[in-house]
Amino acid sequence: MAADELGEFERIRRFFAPLAGPGGLGLLDDAALVDCRAGRRLVVTADAIVAGVHYLSDDPPELVAKKLLRVNLSDLAAMGARPLHYLLTTALPAELGSAWLAGFAQGLDEDQRRFGIDLLGGDSVSTTGPAVLSLTAIGEVGAGMEVRRNGARSGDLVWVSGTIGDAFLGLSLLRGGYPGLASEHRASLIGRFRVPEPRTELGPLVSGIAHAMIDVSDGLLADLGHICETSGVAAVIELASVPLSPAARVIVAGDPDIQPRLAAGGDDYELLVAAPGGSSGAIAAMSSRLGLPLTMIGKIEAGSGVRLVDTDGRVIPCDKTGYRHF
Amino acid sequence: MAADELGEFERIRRFFAPLAGPGGLGLLDDAALVDCRAGRRLVVTADAIVAGVHYLSDDPPELVAKKLLRVNLSDLAAMGARPLHYLLTTALPAELGSAWLAGFAQGLDEDQRRFGIDLLGGDSVSTTGPAVLSLTAIGEVGAGMEVRRNGARSGDLVWVSGTIGDAFLGLSLLRGGYPGLASEHRASLIGRFRVPEPRTELGPLVSGIAHAMIDVSDGLLADLGHICETSGVAAVIELASVPLSPAARVIVAGDPDIQPRLAAGGDDYELLVAAPGGSSGAIAAMSSRLGLPLTMIGKIEAGSGVRLVDTDGRVIPCDKTGYRHF
Repeated sequence: MAADELGEFERIRRFFAPLAGPGGLGLLDDAALVDCRAGRRLVVTADAIVAGVHYLSDDPPELVAKKLLRVNLSDLAAMGARPLHYLLTTALPAELGSAWLAGFAQGLDEDQRRFGIDLLGGDSVSTTGPAVLSLTAIGEVGAGMEVRRNGARSGDLVWVSGTIGDAFLGLSLLRGGYPGLASEHRASLIGRFRVPEPRTELGPLVSGIAHAMIDVSDGLLADLGHICETSGVAAVIELASVPLSPAARVIVAGDPDIQPRLAAGGDDYELLVAAPGGSSGAIAAMSSRLGLPLTMIGKIEAGSGVRLVDTDGRVIPCDKTGYRHF
Repeated sequence: MAADELGEFERIRRFFAPLAGPGGLGLLDDAALVDCRAGRRLVVTADAIVAGVHYLSDDPPELVAKKLLRVNLSDLAAMGARPLHYLLTTALPAELGSAWLAGFAQGLDEDQRRFGIDLLGGDSVSTTGPAVLSLTAIGEVGAGMEVRRNGARSGDLVWVSGTIGDAFLGLSLLRGGYPGLASEHRASLIGRFRVPEPRTELGPLVSGIAHAMIDVSDGLLADLGHICETSGVAAVIELASVPLSPAARVIVAGDPDIQPRLAAGGDDYELLVAAPGGSSGAIAAMSSRLGLPLTMIGKIEAGSGVRLVDTDGRVIPCDKTGYRHF
C-alpha cells in the first residue's frame, strides 16, 4: 500500500464525514435518516458519470464533483423540486490518491454551501477500470406541485432558460476546435461544459405555471422530443430564437452551419418549459427576479415530433438525436 | 453497433421500466416521487459492487442483481427499517449485452416480489472497465424507532441471527479450497456467498428491543467493533457460541484452525444486536415466530475493543479486521 493510499474507513472519515448533514449520522451507521415535512413529497433521482465518457480523466477533481452533483440537481429542478440531500458512491482506480479525493471533496463542499444541501451516505470502492461516480439526489416539492414531462398541451409556448449550445462548443474546443477563438470566450464555453449551472431556483418558482418541464441534457431538440412524446403533442422551434451566449454568437458568425447543431448538442442543463400563453407576463417577472434570461423559442401544437424552422417557417434538416452514451 | 447492443433508452424501456413502481413514473421523467407516511421517517443507504472485487465476473447475472439489492436491504434492516424502493445506476462494459441485462433484470424482478419493493429510477452508462453497479435503497421506520450503532450499554447481551462464516467459506470453495467437501455443503456455502439473506423481517421486529444493531458485512468481530467504538463500550464473544451451519461444522471438524477466521470473515449479512439481558424471552419469541435462529454469543462490558475467548475465557488471538476492499 502506497503511503498515499488510505483504507476505506479512513477515506470516509477524512474526506466524506465532514460533508455529512444531521441525517447522515456522521456516516457512522448502516443508513441515514430523512424527515418529510407535512404537505411535501420527496423527489429522488440518480445519475452516474464515468471518466473518459462524461468527463475527461484529467479534469480538475473539484469540477468533476460539481458536475456530478449539478447534473442531479438539474433533474430535481426539472421536477420543480428544491434540493436537500445526496448519497454518493465512488468506484475509483488506485492511481487516484488522496490529493484527487481532497479536491473532489472540496468541490462537493463548495457546492453543498452554494445549494444548501448535505451528504447522507454512500460507499467507496475500488475498480481496475476508469472512475465511476454515482450520485442519488433527494429534494422536496409541495405535494401535487411536481412538474412532469407529460403535461404539455397544444397552444402552450416553449421557453428555455439561459443559453443553448455552450457545453457542446466547450467540448469542441477541448477537442481542438476553433483554435482562433479569443481566450475569454474559450474559458466561458469550456467552463459551461465542465460545470453546468442547474436552475435550482427557477424550477420550484416556475412549477406553479409550467404544464411540462425537462432539463436539457440530451440536447434541446431531443429533450423537447421527450416532452412531446410523453405529452402526445408536437412542437415547432424557431432556430433564430434559440438563445446563444456571446461566445457562441462569435463562433456561429464564422461557422453558420454549426447553429442547428447547437440545438441538438446536449449538456446544457437549462430548463425547457411548456407553459400556457397567458403566463408570459409571470415568466418575464421570474426572469427579472432571478436575473436569468428566459426565452420563448417556439410552441406546442397538435401532432407529433419536433420541427426546427427558419424565420420563414421552413424546416431546417438536422440530427435531433443529441447525446447517446451507449 | 452490434445487433445485440441497445441504446440507453431502449435498455431502460425494455429491462428497467417494467420494474418501476408508481412513484417511478414509468422511468419517463427526470426524477421520481416518494411519499412519506405520517409518523414515519425514511431511511436511505447506498452501496456499490464491482465485478472482480465484490462478485466474480462470470457469476450468473440474476445472482449479481440479488446480491446488490440484498446488501442494501441488509443495511436498512440493521436500522430497523422496512424496505420500500430503490434506485439503480449501472456502468457496464460493452461485452455485457442484452442476455446479461435480461438475467440481471430477472433477478431484480424476483427480489422485488420477494421483498415488496419497487424501482424508482437510475441511470445506465458504459465503462471500458469492469461493471460497477450502484444501488440506493429507501425504507421507512416509525419515527424514533430507528436503531443505531451507538446505543450499546455495559450489561447488554450480544445476539446474532442465522449462521456465521458461510460466505467466507463459500468464497474459499470458489477459489479451490476444501475440494473434498460433499456437494450439498458446497452448494449451500457458495449460495450464501453469492446471495445473502437480508434479515428484513427481523430488523423492524427487534427495533423495539435493540440498544444497538449492525449487519455483518465486514465480519462479525469487525462489525461488533464498530458498535463498541461508537457506543464507547467493550465486548467479549465466546467462539464456541458463534453459530455455524452444518456445512461449516463439517469444515471446522477437519480444519479447527479455521474457526476463529469465520468470525472475522465477512459478507454474512446477519444482524448483530446488543439488547438488555431482560429481553431474552422476547428475542426467543421472535426467533420462534420467524423460524430464524437467534443466538446469544457474548456480552457488552465497560472498556473498549472486542475480545474473542474460548470456553475457559482465554483470549483467542485472531485478525479482527475483516474485509477491506481498499
